[in-house]
Amino acid sequence: MVRWEPGAAERLQKAALELFATRGFEQTTTMEIAESVGLTERTFFRHFSDKREVLFSGQQVLVDAFLAGVDAAPPDASPLEIVASSLRSAGSFFPDERRAHSRTRQSVIDQNPALRERERHKLASIATMVAEAMRRRGIGEVAATLAAESGATVFAIAFTQWIREGEQRSLTDIAAEVLRELLTLTATASERMPR
Amino acid sequence: MVRWEPGAAERLQKAALELFATRGFEQTTTMEIAESVGLTERTFFRHFSDKREVLFSGQQVLVDAFLAGVDAAPPDASPLEIVASSLRSAGSFFPDERRAHSRTRQSVIDQNPALRERERHKLASIATMVAEAMRRRGIGEVAATLAAESGATVFAIAFTQWIREGEQRSLTDIAAEVLRELLTLTATASERMPR
Repeated sequence: MVRWEPGAAERLQKAALELFATRGFEQTTTMEIAESVGLTERTFFRHFSDKREVLFSGQQVLVDAFLAGVDAAPPDASPLEIVASSLRSAGSFFPDERRAHSRTRQSVIDQNPALRERERHKLASIATMVAEAMRRRGIGEVAATLAAESGATVFAIAFTQWIREGEQRSLTDIAAEVLRELLTLTATASERMPR
Repeated sequence: MVRWEPGAAERLQKAALELFATRGFEQTTTMEIAESVGLTERTFFRHFSDKREVLFSGQQVLVDAFLAGVDAAPPDASPLEIVASSLRSAGSFFPDERRAHSRTRQSVIDQNPALRERERHKLASIATMVAEAMRRRGIGEVAATLAAESGATVFAIAFTQWIREGEQRSLTDIAAEVLRELLTLTATASERMPR
């Protein structure tokens, strides 16, 4: 018989993150995570396939947010306008209440090469899917890839700034600023480089 | 006693690539690679730490080419002008004679998720090192990261085009065209997006 544990996934996730941050990801077992919130390891595995999944369970929701932003852009939007829309949508996935959680999660990931690799892979997959969504809108292959990869870079830079201690701006505002910096960078280059 | 085998590394690399491409990377053993060119497995391991290294032994030379391009840019070059210089330098690492080899290598990598991951990681490391080199030139952190990541994206797109069957343009020329497309993309966006 499976006993229903209300909010078990959230409790496990919160406990796991605390243990990862204080003891280290490698040093924490699924048994310890489960026991720290009075649950069994079996309950843990009903919610997560392994302890790494605790850190990446939100991935699909984030992908969907990026893609919803692509869909929300007006039909005549240019590739980078679509990226801007996608970044606004992804930014709304990280309200200020989530900043402390995201900061702790990132500190865990930064300490483990395999987790860093997985995080990098996650971002690369998002860029690939955004590029595909842009191609479905009729944007050329090179333009779609350039725009989507630029969007992923802007997101990564903005996210790093957003979780810094003392940072007050929203992720959406920071991402818009970084995207503007990219436009300034290329505008300056355009004036000077042969076309 | 170690017997000196002239050109052993090159022969092993060529044989390995052919075996990987025809039999599959997983299915090929280091013993088979060595024996196919009349060498011992021991000789193989004097040149490569494992069979994956055969595919990635040129990595440091490529990194150096990117960095040499950063150094070669004039002192007052803008971030994207430095990237353009870096791409020209990296492009010269892939003369036309190397195209067939690069195409076969890529087909092997495309078939294996772990190799794809390693290749992605290689490109990410290059972008990080180019960004660091740009920061040492006094370029701001965000601008350096945006420019270096854009450079890596341009390189990846250009490389994919360069190894297509029937492609005649040099990698340097393709990279310059893709970089121009990025400038066009952002120039169009700049006219329409709020600054």
